[in-house]
Amino acid sequence: MDIKKLAEFAARTNIAFPTAEEYGGLSGFYDWGIRGSQLKKNVKDTWWRYFVERKDLIVGLDGSIITHPRVWEASGHVEEFHDPIIRCKSCGRVFRADHLLEETLGINAEGLSLEELSKHLKKVRCPFCGGELTEPTYFNLMFETKVGPYGGLTSYLRPETAQLIFADFPRLFQGNRKRLPFGVAQMGRSFRNEISPRNFLFRLREFEQMEIEFFFDPENDPSPFYDDVKDYEVLTLTIEDQERGREGEVRKVSDVVGDYPGREWMVYWIVESLRFFELVGVDMERIRIRQQLPDERAHYSMDTWDVEFHFDDLGWKEIEGIAHRSDYDLSRHAEYSGSNKYRVKREDGTEFTPWVIEPSFGVERILLAVLYSSYQKDNQRTWLSLRPWIVPVQVAVFPLVSKGPLSERAREIYRTLKRYFRTSYDEGGSIGKRYRRYDEIGTPYVVTVDSETLKDETVTVRDRDTMEQERIPIDQLVEHLRAKLVPVI
Amino acid sequence: MDIKKLAEFAARTNIAFPTAEEYGGLSGFYDWGIRGSQLKKNVKDTWWRYFVERKDLIVGLDGSIITHPRVWEASGHVEEFHDPIIRCKSCGRVFRADHLLEETLGINAEGLSLEELSKHLKKVRCPFCGGELTEPTYFNLMFETKVGPYGGLTSYLRPETAQLIFADFPRLFQGNRKRLPFGVAQMGRSFRNEISPRNFLFRLREFEQMEIEFFFDPENDPSPFYDDVKDYEVLTLTIEDQERGREGEVRKVSDVVGDYPGREWMVYWIVESLRFFELVGVDMERIRIRQQLPDERAHYSMDTWDVEFHFDDLGWKEIEGIAHRSDYDLSRHAEYSGSNKYRVKREDGTEFTPWVIEPSFGVERILLAVLYSSYQKDNQRTWLSLRPWIVPVQVAVFPLVSKGPLSERAREIYRTLKRYFRTSYDEGGSIGKRYRRYDEIGTPYVVTVDSETLKDETVTVRDRDTMEQERIPIDQLVEHLRAKLVPVI
Repeated sequence: MDIKKLAEFAARTNIAFPTAEEYGGLSGFYDWGIRGSQLKKNVKDTWWRYFVERKDLIVGLDGSIITHPRVWEASGHVEEFHDPIIRCKSCGRVFRADHLLEETLGINAEGLSLEELSKHLKKVRCPFCGGELTEPTYFNLMFETKVGPYGGLTSYLRPETAQLIFADFPRLFQGNRKRLPFGVAQMGRSFRNEISPRNFLFRLREFEQMEIEFFFDPENDPSPFYDDVKDYEVLTLTIEDQERGREGEVRKVSDVVGDYPGREWMVYWIVESLRFFELVGVDMERIRIRQQLPDERAHYSMDTWDVEFHFDDLGWKEIEGIAHRSDYDLSRHAEYSGSNKYRVKREDGTEFTPWVIEPSFGVERILLAVLYSSYQKDNQRTWLSLRPWIVPVQVAVFPLVSKGPLSERAREIYRTLKRYFRTSYDEGGSIGKRYRRYDEIGTPYVVTVDSETLKDETVTVRDRDTMEQERIPIDQLVEHLRAKLVPVI
Repeated sequence: MDIKKLAEFAARTNIAFPTAEEYGGLSGFYDWGIRGSQLKKNVKDTWWRYFVERKDLIVGLDGSIITHPRVWEASGHVEEFHDPIIRCKSCGRVFRADHLLEETLGINAEGLSLEELSKHLKKVRCPFCGGELTEPTYFNLMFETKVGPYGGLTSYLRPETAQLIFADFPRLFQGNRKRLPFGVAQMGRSFRNEISPRNFLFRLREFEQMEIEFFFDPENDPSPFYDDVKDYEVLTLTIEDQERGREGEVRKVSDVVGDYPGREWMVYWIVESLRFFELVGVDMERIRIRQQLPDERAHYSMDTWDVEFHFDDLGWKEIEGIAHRSDYDLSRHAEYSGSNKYRVKREDGTEFTPWVIEPSFGVERILLAVLYSSYQKDNQRTWLSLRPWIVPVQVAVFPLVSKGPLSERAREIYRTLKRYFRTSYDEGGSIGKRYRRYDEIGTPYVVTVDSETLKDETVTVRDRDTMEQERIPIDQLVEHLRAKLVPVI
């Protein structure tokens, strides 16, 4: 599988396609179609169910995309959330300065200052027209907009969902009856005005995140769930591995996370994240956790682990980051808002600012990993081996013949099943063509109504992965399918 | 109930509160908290399940908030989507010119031209400082932003979710295997830069919509589901009723919808909308459908029915509009994009542009109607009589005593129930205080573990509305609750 082929497949199967294609699209913006809108909703719903509805200590927030602009000053985004850019003086093309250096001179330029970039870029000319380049400058990645008439107030589209969890901490903490530890989860759109969106859904200007901010007392940090996670093993790549050029190895997560306040929670969130990926059908053989190097880490982070997926063509790429943010965020909001509500009183009367661990998931990247994991092809057919609770269509019902009593009986069965499962009815084209149509969108079970059905009230149920068919009495069909389709959470 | 009291209640119970309160908030933007994020998700999920997953002929789309700007030229929003505004020359305050006229002179000014507004406004001065007012001008309600570096391309935050369903029609129609009729549903954020946001969640700058565009052939428009809707009755207010100053009366929906192509689908969508409102717990005694007057209708509409809810303090207000848009939208996209894919071929070889009926739901307004419908108060307590599938917390588990074996047993029961339902465990404060806490957020059932439990393996289950308690064996508890909590769809 490669990303270009996947983009074609996704457009053809109505999973995702460029927004407003008839107008030529808009770089960095995609729409999720008939199959994709349901697929994305299922992944998000599974996340919410797993992390919010079924877990202890986690609650939700659904904050606005535009908020008070001072929130983004406090967060550091107004000052720091930028990329270095450079423009060709002759053709006008714009490049990310660090990417251009990497591509032309092979220099790892991430995190270099403008001065350092400028020095190296003296040797570089426009790769398209050979023209001279401007000096590099910073370009802030937040989309700006004006709120209200007559000029209005400049504000921003959120570049992450996380920040309102911090800004709204006082209300949320009150709503949790002032108990620690607790976590707040949020899902939704984020916006980054990327210089060069690329790789289909991989680097978008509008995308979705699922984030949790988990607050705890750094002086009282054990996790009651630690026993359940401490023996979990996965391929790990530590800072030391990377500095020594080692490949990484399978270890217990609890053996590689450092010794700092919140250590047990860090282990917990890494392991629970991995369990979630397994639940939605990411191939765990292609997963590793990698500790970010000190110069990669965001300014607020004292330790960050990325969950990386191995994409056949793109290599190892982050699909989630788990950052230890200490008390950076709440301290900043206390400072910028002047409010004393970001601090918390212990039972013994002492006061402190809660610390935070943040698992931050990229929805589109997870869906890419799920698609790379589930795309299957042989001489006969293409199919997606998606988890049954993630698939857009869970059951398809076909009459062997599209007219007369078979069709009528099939429609009755369809109407019954549709009350319980995401079910389609299809009588268009040959049976073989219909099987291929649903294999391609991952439908795990197809019910076929044939002439036997009218005699003995049974149907065939065909399994997507094995293509084997079983005969099942109609009156047992709902229970038979329910056992296979209901999620394990 | 009044809107101000509800806003206080919503903030106190962590349903919704002004965004970034510690920074003073931002007018027209609210965040949904611990209870509200789950409540809103439940209403949206119920809508999606009812209209997409459980219905025939409806599929989904999840399009981007920012799209190609020409989409908004085609839709008419760039040219037409504005409000008249006026400013005080002395204090600088800005007003909606039509609202100001209504409030000062009692004139119904909706839809008046700038010239007409100007004429009337000659008599009006600033209501705050008595200063002179500017001439009225139009202010476009779309939020603008720039996509890409160095100036970038001006685009807009979508002011409605509907439009991408039209722009993406070619892909969606192809994904539906070129069959008509069919509908496409979309939920998500929309943005309108309102001059004067007001009434808590009623007029917001950022809000959510749930919209369906239902496409059909105007020459082949019967609905196979018409029998199921044709006898549905509701309080109706036609154009004629309004012109004659009548109150409206209970009639069949099918008796008041006019005779035009798509008439049966118009009846269908009105009735199905009403059934949805009933499902999520809107008080149907406070519902009417009102036909928009010709001068109220949007330029694209040949007939529009509003579903209105009677708010105790605000009166009758629209919570959904069902518009007959004929072929306006697809024709405009055909024209502006130059694409021929917005037209459809019949089996007989003739070509046409599909017609559209659009049910458009406002999420926050529905939630307001649900809260107004379910808020209950007597001498003893305040409670929300929410539908069990909509409530944030479905079951609460209390030990009678918060230490020792009762607490342990209660935690075990909590862990079991949490696998099936949105369940909370609570041992904080007196039993009475705990009941009141969960009554206030609408929790329909509370399970209490007392000393009897340890003897006979039974618990009490208390009903929120009747406050009656039943003793239920623990091994029947899941089934007992499931029967009450699982939605009827």
